[in-house]
Amino acid sequence: MLKVHNFSAGPCILPRQVFEKSAESILDFKESGLSIIEISHRSKDFVEVMDKARSLVKEILNVPDTHDVLFLQGGASLGFLISAYNLMGVNKTGGYLVTGSWAKKAAKEASFMGNSIIVGSSEDKNFNYIPKGYSISNNLDYFHVTSNNTIFGTQIKSFYQGTTPLACDMSSDIFSRKIDVSNFDLIYAGAQKNMGPAGTTLYIFNKKILGNSSVPIPTMLDLKTHFEKDSMFNTPPVFAVYASMLTLNWLKNNGGLDFIEKQNEKKANLLYNQIDNSSLFKGTANLEDRSTMNVTFTLENDDLNETFNNMLADAKINGLKGHRSVGGYRASMYNALSLESVELLVNVMNELEIKKG
Amino acid sequence: MLKVHNFSAGPCILPRQVFEKSAESILDFKESGLSIIEISHRSKDFVEVMDKARSLVKEILNVPDTHDVLFLQGGASLGFLISAYNLMGVNKTGGYLVTGSWAKKAAKEASFMGNSIIVGSSEDKNFNYIPKGYSISNNLDYFHVTSNNTIFGTQIKSFYQGTTPLACDMSSDIFSRKIDVSNFDLIYAGAQKNMGPAGTTLYIFNKKILGNSSVPIPTMLDLKTHFEKDSMFNTPPVFAVYASMLTLNWLKNNGGLDFIEKQNEKKANLLYNQIDNSSLFKGTANLEDRSTMNVTFTLENDDLNETFNNMLADAKINGLKGHRSVGGYRASMYNALSLESVELLVNVMNELEIKKG
Repeated sequence: MLKVHNFSAGPCILPRQVFEKSAESILDFKESGLSIIEISHRSKDFVEVMDKARSLVKEILNVPDTHDVLFLQGGASLGFLISAYNLMGVNKTGGYLVTGSWAKKAAKEASFMGNSIIVGSSEDKNFNYIPKGYSISNNLDYFHVTSNNTIFGTQIKSFYQGTTPLACDMSSDIFSRKIDVSNFDLIYAGAQKNMGPAGTTLYIFNKKILGNSSVPIPTMLDLKTHFEKDSMFNTPPVFAVYASMLTLNWLKNNGGLDFIEKQNEKKANLLYNQIDNSSLFKGTANLEDRSTMNVTFTLENDDLNETFNNMLADAKINGLKGHRSVGGYRASMYNALSLESVELLVNVMNELEIKKG
Repeated sequence: MLKVHNFSAGPCILPRQVFEKSAESILDFKESGLSIIEISHRSKDFVEVMDKARSLVKEILNVPDTHDVLFLQGGASLGFLISAYNLMGVNKTGGYLVTGSWAKKAAKEASFMGNSIIVGSSEDKNFNYIPKGYSISNNLDYFHVTSNNTIFGTQIKSFYQGTTPLACDMSSDIFSRKIDVSNFDLIYAGAQKNMGPAGTTLYIFNKKILGNSSVPIPTMLDLKTHFEKDSMFNTPPVFAVYASMLTLNWLKNNGGLDFIEKQNEKKANLLYNQIDNSSLFKGTANLEDRSTMNVTFTLENDDLNETFNNMLADAKINGLKGHRSVGGYRASMYNALSLESVELLVNVMNELEIKKG
């Protein structure tokens, strides 16, 4: 097989052994003679997969006993609605930190059953920074943030600490660094970055929120429904949960967050240093808010785009095109992307520098 | 690999070649050097998969131009809510034919944003028949039915024809027989029976319902949201859609509904004949409402259960345990289950008959 360096923003690269084990289990799961995708979700073998996936999340993130973990469906986009439903309190108002397109969409869904207030926004500068110094008023039932903004390449480095319940869409940087789960009432994350393939969404929540919403919640959007059935109220997305379990197991066996946090910083520093020392490239995100996951940059001279694109293609570097709302380039460097792939990218950038800088 | 005969109620058996092609594409998709589960859902290669899956549904079911097709998430359980939201009209009332547990759950979700009226129910006889002779009043915005009841082994043989918009949860028998799609305003179906692995849900709808609900709909529950983005409003469940596309392609290449309908009838007749001519076994569903997909039956003498269970295990017949709310046995015979597997089951039943009958 060709070696392709996959810098896609998500779905994205996963560990090679996850592909290998997944393929094996699709042909014959645990030597049962059955495929992982044809067994009953109520079978002992699959219940074990679900339990293992949930317990790996708890172990890797050091989830306290106050919290629990579910694997649901619908992506973070349904999470916008689920989080608002489950966190609405007597004030029927949620506060939102609008740091990008996804945060904006999250705020919109809260307006469906309550009010959403924009606590801070960086839309004035096309979301190239994380607003700070905002104040959280007492009449908010919760405060919602997006930890990492894939499109704009920004990331919250220090989370709000206070009495207002904190909710976080952590889709694009969960499992990339250490976090204090006890600080959050609700974390949710689409799997397709650091956790597994697209098709399942992780929810981590303080159990005290269950059943305490001030608004009626449809059955499937109520976290209590799924909590009471151990994440098996209805048929779960079997394969996505299975491959997530494998990915989490890989992370655990490779040093967990201690290792991966350092590794991700190393990768990010390498690339940001190249950009900062370059005469051709320019980073688009505010320095102190730069994401370790998604590095956004442009070529200052548009005439060089074609040359650079050809060099990337020759090096089998894939997925570097920036989002249409920012333009330029975006290097997404999720957990499974190796340091070697980033070194290769940096070498290609350096080559261009030598040729045209 | 062992040959196991998988009679599971769902997730269930899929064609062997779907397992093989899926495993291959997880290791290397279209010789790209990338896995199907690591490529961007916006890549040309995946957009083709989604388009192909949607067009295969249209081709196989002969979907008229008035209708369109989406692949979403959440299972039929979220479909209960989505169907009610999208079909609520000026009367804010849906009518439900309650033929089992799923139908009952569907009716419950309609109460969330409107009223649900039970048009007919077979709960009086533990759902062992399909109610008939009900009348649909003029003040219903839609009439909701469940085409096949996996737990109770019943199936609607002839659908309501009238002016009230018809909605159908077709999770467990879609693609098993010919249907007239133009007769339905909305069909939805979890993939994990005849369409593919768990993790995606099919929606087929008359485009005239879009944007015509009388109630406000959250973004992700509005079919219009997904229709306008060609089923890619947010990241789709990539692998589940891919494997569904493969399964639909297998169905098309194996004679489509013309062939499979006859094949399913042949399998069902074989097993029902065995039951009807047996002194040991008894079917639980009303004769004229018997499902071709799920055959429910009991051993009249409980003392024989252990012997029969051992004989099934020896023959590598898997997944025959009945649902706890009915007891006994349930043979689920979805499209990918071969006639040979049913013949084997019948032989085992016959053997017991000879020994103990």
